[in-house]
Amino acid sequence: MTPQEMKTLLKERGSKVEDWLAGCCDGREMPPRLRESMLYSLQAGGKRLRPVLCMSTAGMCGLAPESVLPFAAAIEMVHTYSLIHDDLPAMDDDDLRRGKPSNHKAFDEATAILAGDGLLTDAFWFMSGMDMPAERVLAALREFAFAAGSPGMVGGQEWDMIFTGMESITLDQLRLMHSMKTGAILRASCTCGALLAGVDASRLKAIGQFGAALGVAFQIADDILDVVSDTATLGKPAGSDAEQGKNTYPKMLGLDQSRQLARQYADDAKAALQGFHGREAEFLAALADYTVNRTA
Amino acid sequence: MTPQEMKTLLKERGSKVEDWLAGCCDGREMPPRLRESMLYSLQAGGKRLRPVLCMSTAGMCGLAPESVLPFAAAIEMVHTYSLIHDDLPAMDDDDLRRGKPSNHKAFDEATAILAGDGLLTDAFWFMSGMDMPAERVLAALREFAFAAGSPGMVGGQEWDMIFTGMESITLDQLRLMHSMKTGAILRASCTCGALLAGVDASRLKAIGQFGAALGVAFQIADDILDVVSDTATLGKPAGSDAEQGKNTYPKMLGLDQSRQLARQYADDAKAALQGFHGREAEFLAALADYTVNRTA
Repeated sequence: MTPQEMKTLLKERGSKVEDWLAGCCDGREMPPRLRESMLYSLQAGGKRLRPVLCMSTAGMCGLAPESVLPFAAAIEMVHTYSLIHDDLPAMDDDDLRRGKPSNHKAFDEATAILAGDGLLTDAFWFMSGMDMPAERVLAALREFAFAAGSPGMVGGQEWDMIFTGMESITLDQLRLMHSMKTGAILRASCTCGALLAGVDASRLKAIGQFGAALGVAFQIADDILDVVSDTATLGKPAGSDAEQGKNTYPKMLGLDQSRQLARQYADDAKAALQGFHGREAEFLAALADYTVNRTA
Repeated sequence: MTPQEMKTLLKERGSKVEDWLAGCCDGREMPPRLRESMLYSLQAGGKRLRPVLCMSTAGMCGLAPESVLPFAAAIEMVHTYSLIHDDLPAMDDDDLRRGKPSNHKAFDEATAILAGDGLLTDAFWFMSGMDMPAERVLAALREFAFAAGSPGMVGGQEWDMIFTGMESITLDQLRLMHSMKTGAILRASCTCGALLAGVDASRLKAIGQFGAALGVAFQIADDILDVVSDTATLGKPAGSDAEQGKNTYPKMLGLDQSRQLARQYADDAKAALQGFHGREAEFLAALADYTVNRTA
């Protein structure tokens, strides 16, 4: 699949996710201010990479990608909650997110905390409402909750808070932090698609390896972009990692070695897909390349 | 069932929940500070009313109450997360909780936010791991997620933030806020036990009515206690509602009428149990009385 075809499909699937997210608060009573705050962050843009991964692995395993849309979009709700909470004054204290005021700046801190709590909780409501065999839905939901919880994303953010500003950390600590903070959800986005499709253990394992390698490649590329890109392109302050004393791959390994490492992980991700064929497998391989070649 | 027998059983079931909670972070890797922060609030005491309701309705519907313990205790994890987030400086800014420094005082604000996020997410992991028919587990989890999310507890807390300090609100607004903030979870604690037991629609409806009425009785009693009790007995500052400009039943209706209303809802709760018999039904009826007669 050419990079252009990949981008077209990524955009097409991302649009479906955005359409779904735009309606995710309909039909349920809630305070209008809370609804606005949730929708504000859900509609702030982004690549929608996680839900697209979920839809595409489901597609690669024999389901229609759109059939897992509510589950996939709920993953994006959880990703969005994590961004809202990460931006809070007590956390990274970021005033900008994707070129717009962060949630607690656009609303207020209490509403931002609650919008995050609401997105997280509501995501599990959507996941549990999937019209598919209950065993599969439950297995996928459980996989996702582990990846998003204290042994995954939440724990990774706590490590990030602890490590930020420390004089030095080891490469192993950096790896651990990222594997929990961003890696776990990226990996679970892939495995959840496979679990919803009821895939066998060996294919599930391969898809897990793909997701884990892609997650590392993605994070290294993110760290590199914070150094080499500019604020307008990124939609968030470039150079903010260094300013906040964040530990990053470029800081620890330098830019060249970081680039090589990202490339290597993207190749590992593609290698994990060896046993899969067809358009969805090609798309996922192209996504792995895109992860390290992107400019924002 | 005598009040004394009820208290003994409440304490016995509460102890089982506490034992389970004490081990809920075992066997999963997470930052030690996050684990300590989660356990600190989980082990701060409390009546464990919500998980006991879940175990007892499951028992009333034919299951062994202990068989739903992980699901019931996970409800307490969600209740605990809500207390941690409610106490944050941006929310109620409470320094004390159950006689001890609140979580963000004992740790730090970032860790408190993350401990809450972790408890909430991990709760769904535990719920989805229940070794019971997948359809039942999924139905209970979905019921609970709705009650805890933006159309329930989270939305109720947002209303509370909006209403606090407003010159006046209507009794309907007060009712709406409480039915979402505390009522939804109390009700769902009851219906989840019934759903896990695979109860039929008419019994589920009756149990939902019991839980809803009990929830209102509980909240009115809580408001009354804040006025008439003292800080040592409550384990949180007495009179804090008035100080924070909170809208309460005593403020709107006076103490006498509030007491009558609480009594009436407790009676409604008991009436909803008419079709149920046996020890668990008697226990739940006694719990409804306790809800309005308690002193803390």
